[in-house]
Amino acid sequence: MPSRSPHTSDTALVAFGRAVRSLRAERTMSQEELAHRSGIDRSYLGAIERGEQNSGLLHLVRIAEALGSTLGALMIKAGL
Amino acid sequence: MPSRSPHTSDTALVAFGRAVRSLRAERTMSQEELAHRSGIDRSYLGAIERGEQNSGLLHLVRIAEALGSTLGALMIKAGL
Repeated sequence: MPSRSPHTSDTALVAFGRAVRSLRAERTMSQEELAHRSGIDRSYLGAIERGEQNSGLLHLVRIAEALGSTLGALMIKAGL
Repeated sequence: MPSRSPHTSDTALVAFGRAVRSLRAERTMSQEELAHRSGIDRSYLGAIERGEQNSGLLHLVRIAEALGSTLGALMIKAGL
């Protein structure tokens, strides 16, 4: 199966994705709801949560805001 | 003069760029030195500091580390 991303093993991407998934769970928010709130495609959001996407700052900010958080707090949660 | 970026007016990009420039000045580090430490091209780094680049998470982490900081702290400094 071909990889769709060159970043699958990067620890920072994985750490960020886990923080997003964790905070989303704390908010009892589905991936679909977070996708809708952030305006980010659900399958792309899934790849972010798996640490397979090197998202740009603008998407990162939108994800944090859609989770009712800030990007600073989300990065700290991710250990970044 | 043609624009090289579609993001020149985004407030989050501008806020991040200003935080990078400010912290770099606190560290009395030249743009060249930050570019060298982070492994990011100097002209690209200049565009980031001007808020003209929507950098990916991996570059953001490298910039924060090269400044002796964390991405979480840098985002908080940027008000993000």
